[in-house]
Amino acid sequence: MIVAIAADSPASTSAAVLSAATAHGLAAQTVPDGRGGTVIGVGGSLPPDILDLPGVNGVRAIHKPYMLASLEIRPASTVMVGDVPIGNGTPVIMAGPCSIESRESLIETAHAVKAAGASILRGGAFKPRTSPYSFQGLGEDGLKHLAAARAAIGLPVVTEVMEPDQVELVASYADMLQVGSRNMANFPLLKKLGRAAKPVLLKRGFSATVEEWLMSAEYILASGNPNVVLCERGIRGFDAMFRFNLDLNVVPAVKELSHLPIIVDPSHGTGKRSLVGRMALAGLAAGADGLMIEVHPDPDRAMCDGAQTITPADLARIHRTGLAVHVAIAAADSAEEPAEISLLANDLVALTA
Amino acid sequence: MIVAIAADSPASTSAAVLSAATAHGLAAQTVPDGRGGTVIGVGGSLPPDILDLPGVNGVRAIHKPYMLASLEIRPASTVMVGDVPIGNGTPVIMAGPCSIESRESLIETAHAVKAAGASILRGGAFKPRTSPYSFQGLGEDGLKHLAAARAAIGLPVVTEVMEPDQVELVASYADMLQVGSRNMANFPLLKKLGRAAKPVLLKRGFSATVEEWLMSAEYILASGNPNVVLCERGIRGFDAMFRFNLDLNVVPAVKELSHLPIIVDPSHGTGKRSLVGRMALAGLAAGADGLMIEVHPDPDRAMCDGAQTITPADLARIHRTGLAVHVAIAAADSAEEPAEISLLANDLVALTA
Amino acid sequence: MIVAIAADSPASTSAAVLSAATAHGLAAQTVPDGRGGTVIGVGGSLPPDILDLPGVNGVRAIHKPYMLASLEIRPASTVMVGDVPIGNGTPVIMAGPCSIESRESLIETAHAVKAAGASILRGGAFKPRTSPYSFQGLGEDGLKHLAAARAAIGLPVVTEVMEPDQVELVASYADMLQVGSRNMANFPLLKKLGRAAKPVLLKRGFSATVEEWLMSAEYILASGNPNVVLCERGIRGFDAMFRFNLDLNVVPAVKELSHLPIIVDPSHGTGKRSLVGRMALAGLAAGADGLMIEVHPDPDRAMCDGAQTITPADLARIHRTGLAVHVAIAAADSAEEPAEISLLANDLVALTA
Amino acid sequence: MIVAIAADSPASTSAAVLSAATAHGLAAQTVPDGRGGTVIGVGGSLPPDILDLPGVNGVRAIHKPYMLASLEIRPASTVMVGDVPIGNGTPVIMAGPCSIESRESLIETAHAVKAAGASILRGGAFKPRTSPYSFQGLGEDGLKHLAAARAAIGLPVVTEVMEPDQVELVASYADMLQVGSRNMANFPLLKKLGRAAKPVLLKRGFSATVEEWLMSAEYILASGNPNVVLCERGIRGFDAMFRFNLDLNVVPAVKELSHLPIIVDPSHGTGKRSLVGRMALAGLAAGADGLMIEVHPDPDRAMCDGAQTITPADLARIHRTGLAVHVAIAAADSAEEPAEISLLANDLVALTA
Repeated sequence: MIVAIAADSPASTSAAVLSAATAHGLAAQTVPDGRGGTVIGVGGSLPPDILDLPGVNGVRAIHKPYMLASLEIRPASTVMVGDVPIGNGTPVIMAGPCSIESRESLIETAHAVKAAGASILRGGAFKPRTSPYSFQGLGEDGLKHLAAARAAIGLPVVTEVMEPDQVELVASYADMLQVGSRNMANFPLLKKLGRAAKPVLLKRGFSATVEEWLMSAEYILASGNPNVVLCERGIRGFDAMFRFNLDLNVVPAVKELSHLPIIVDPSHGTGKRSLVGRMALAGLAAGADGLMIEVHPDPDRAMCDGAQTITPADLARIHRTGLAVHVAIAAADSAEEPAEISLLANDLVALTA
Repeated sequence: MIVAIAADSPASTSAAVLSAATAHGLAAQTVPDGRGGTVIGVGGSLPPDILDLPGVNGVRAIHKPYMLASLEIRPASTVMVGDVPIGNGTPVIMAGPCSIESRESLIETAHAVKAAGASILRGGAFKPRTSPYSFQGLGEDGLKHLAAARAAIGLPVVTEVMEPDQVELVASYADMLQVGSRNMANFPLLKKLGRAAKPVLLKRGFSATVEEWLMSAEYILASGNPNVVLCERGIRGFDAMFRFNLDLNVVPAVKELSHLPIIVDPSHGTGKRSLVGRMALAGLAAGADGLMIEVHPDPDRAMCDGAQTITPADLARIHRTGLAVHVAIAAADSAEEPAEISLLANDLVALTA
Repeated sequence: MIVAIAADSPASTSAAVLSAATAHGLAAQTVPDGRGGTVIGVGGSLPPDILDLPGVNGVRAIHKPYMLASLEIRPASTVMVGDVPIGNGTPVIMAGPCSIESRESLIETAHAVKAAGASILRGGAFKPRTSPYSFQGLGEDGLKHLAAARAAIGLPVVTEVMEPDQVELVASYADMLQVGSRNMANFPLLKKLGRAAKPVLLKRGFSATVEEWLMSAEYILASGNPNVVLCERGIRGFDAMFRFNLDLNVVPAVKELSHLPIIVDPSHGTGKRSLVGRMALAGLAAGADGLMIEVHPDPDRAMCDGAQTITPADLARIHRTGLAVHVAIAAADSAEEPAEISLLANDLVALTA
Repeated sequence: MIVAIAADSPASTSAAVLSAATAHGLAAQTVPDGRGGTVIGVGGSLPPDILDLPGVNGVRAIHKPYMLASLEIRPASTVMVGDVPIGNGTPVIMAGPCSIESRESLIETAHAVKAAGASILRGGAFKPRTSPYSFQGLGEDGLKHLAAARAAIGLPVVTEVMEPDQVELVASYADMLQVGSRNMANFPLLKKLGRAAKPVLLKRGFSATVEEWLMSAEYILASGNPNVVLCERGIRGFDAMFRFNLDLNVVPAVKELSHLPIIVDPSHGTGKRSLVGRMALAGLAAGADGLMIEVHPDPDRAMCDGAQTITPADLARIHRTGLAVHVAIAAADSAEEPAEISLLANDLVALTA
């Protein structure tokens, strides 16, 4: 049940709804509605008369199962990662190495990706590897290097957390906590992240439906953390030519269903360096709020995922071209008269001359 | 085996290779190499000494199984549909109704899609329908309406052919012959199309690998028709929210492997009207040479596929925005100096003001 | 609309329904109901008063879209292939080479598979091959060899037909006409087979849903041929370890939905020789009415599909063990008292001693 | 690197290999080879001269990536769950409710499934649910009920563990620890289970490849727990008719690659009650070492997964028929002479009379 409460309602109204939920043994969570008011999602039904309170604008008994993640409760939300907004209309690039290898190499890469246009640094300290015999990441040392790189370049950092017990540790170093594809339905981890003070980047399970994905986001939201960004990173397909298939259909589909920002990861989404650039552009054209890309100064020597890792120079090209795509769509969308359109087309053509 | 023959070689060289292939019981097919010379694909191995001929530039014994479709033999090819080129760097839009319903409605739609930016008219006369009890298309009457619409608007037309016996009939009316997804591996049909004088639009089977798809193109090329355009139209996925999943990864992947042009069909590729626009833009950003889109003046009354059909006004918006995306990418790709990039970004931003 | 007509109804009743359908422009087809009466499937709705006729037992307006293939109209049907029944409770084995290679080798294999327990001989004359440069089958010569093998061993034969124009030719030689996976939705071919006098083996498209498969059967039934046997042959999966994934779930699922017999093909369904035996047994345990298996005296020298082909000795083992599985299930199913069950278990254990 | 050590080697040999591995910074784990000796898996390469020790039978540098799970190191292993062996040739049934609902209902169900032939009781205390608003299981109270049911019926119990911190708690109550499909690649959980004293039931991720699955087993083995049983429980497919697709191909495929026992779960594997029985039989015919089945006295009132849950009477029928299938295969496999085969067939037919 969704209860919408007006901006100017008395504080007693929210309190009454929350305590009624408790009295009925139902979970309840308050989230901002993006227009000054709040919404309370109740995990069940309350009697209608209880909700006859000043400032209650509306009550929905029928709604999406992911009620707090749904576009039904509020317009598109913006999530702050440090001082970088995601979802405010300007695409954001998160970039960096698959795995943190050393402090020096991370700081070198961090400078390079910042120069190439990234505004958030990524790097793995705890690495989920298919083999127990593969390099499992530097662990807390990696987190320390990440913090050092943040200090050096002034960009916020995102890194993966693999289990509930790591949440506090990782949150003490990172600006954003990443949930990997294999953990999308790790519900104890999601609940713990719901009580963290940092935003969460929730990757889609590689064979999760959109509804399952939004339900995983709902676990985080329902546990009290409203700052969730979704990340499409490729689904399992039948063609062995591709490691994974970046599934861009979910970008506009999620935009119709949820207020949460969504980014795409063309590195894991394709598994192949030469496809990253075009799929990054396609992701932005599909409406994504940003990109996550694996970058290494010398991809062939990267300790993991080298085959899908690009250079800082490649990233600069993606940033430049991606920005152009984004601005062109905004410009063309806002041009309504045929005359303007011709003008636009002419100007764009002139730019290529 | 691939035999490359120089532009200025004596005619006797090609003739000698072809007759040697015949003498060894091997299929052989000549195709232009895009640089004035020719390439002969031989379906097996010839003894090396036979190929010691004037003008033989090179012989490859190891090559892709789709040797005539491969980028190994020539640079990107352009296919002419009537007077409309596909693959020359400017994206092309094919649009029109799923099914031809009447002469009047087709001509009305044809005018509308032309005004909205389409340069090829599509419309189904022979319709592959899952149910034997569904409308199966107008058949030859539909082809006549298509020819009438072409006469009325001056655009070339593309329509589906479902069986070998229809090829001549459909080719007598249409400018391009479409092979539907369910027929991608209908080899008798592909062989017959290899002997047709019209270009072929080869849709990807909805669970075909890229290699299987290019091998189907190879059937057409090996039978003598060099004019094949590929069309990605969505693969089968696991999320019932989507009718099909438009798989844009294949666009840059095909560009690395084949010289054939490739377009995308976001209508079948998503099955949902509201996703068509963004996925069309994403397709162009991924590098597609064009789009195929189902358009109807009143989509909710279309005789088939209404749920994925858009209006002419929607198409105009896709055309305008898609052109902007295409030009922006070209412009940004060609800008190499930081100064130019800033200028470009500023100009693009100015256009939105 | 389904119209059920009693066994003892006047002939005028069926005639009246059929002519009413014609008058309303609707397709209609009569099929036996398995209990002496008939069912008429009408591809649309007739006014109720027209159906107020003697002997009309029931009219269903709401039914499965595959009305003639549905279990709603009759109990399980048995299809005769020559004198071999499929669907009568005893599993049938179809076996033979992927591709017919020569008259001698085919007859040799035919004797071997008969001795190993097969009751129908399979062999490909027209072969759908991914590459235009691969061996495409012996064509009509292959059909002649097949007829010679039938004469030599006295078993009926099944072979693939790839296009509408081949139907009459193939039907003049073979006892059963096979539709390959790639042609499951080749509707012109299905319609033509609906007018053939021979039973049809309809393989499931490798990414077709059960409903799409039954709709393809419906095309054949609606065109007048009631003798259709379904064949599951593996779906496309995500694990490159398997060429295809035999999907046995469809066996009991089809049994709940349709009266048509269903067999399984563990050769194509796995693509790997060592998996064929166990998956054949699993198919019978799942309830299949038979098996189709590729057999060659020397699998490693087979002209196609050697990797999934087994020897006659392997087949004999599958036949023996498969029969045991089938009989054991029947025996255990019919044992209702605990005493009988123990007896059964003891007897079965004794057999292994 | 795999180091095989003879049964009668001096203890110093194993110790030397393990300390050499430590000195080289490599993980190493000792496992029994099933023939009295041991195998040491080393996560990397040791210099050959170090391994020139008494009792070292062989060293493999090239092996499967899942070296400890591989059939390369030992024959099929048997895992004990309490006093019930899995993998010794007699199929085992684990049955019980999806979710533990109360002590009374669990004990009632436990008695019923034991009477129906189950030898291990299953029941969920910690439930991974797609929605945060769904019933999440009784938690530790559920574990206490499970222990009470074990005391009441004398069968060992298996239940799911969802996070590393739960391992000790769950292991203090249960005889076997289940890893759910969504956690197959939860590596911190797998490592923790590798240090538990109870056997582990490792469900396949619903889109995991066989190799990924065996690598997850390897995580447990490499952490020191040799008692792992695999469980196939259905993969994600494209046909919305099925919740999941039980993929029996992996049963014989795993038997070729690994010494670990494997069971199948036709309840989750189909999601549909009416398909469970036949798919259970098919699983056993495919060679599975056992079944896991959801059973409830009143499936339509089960608190979760009712649609795929069967009654104790259904289970008794599966047990009886499954045993018959298993014995029939063993009997037919061991019958080598035609005379014996006929006798078998006759005896089996007689049993049905």
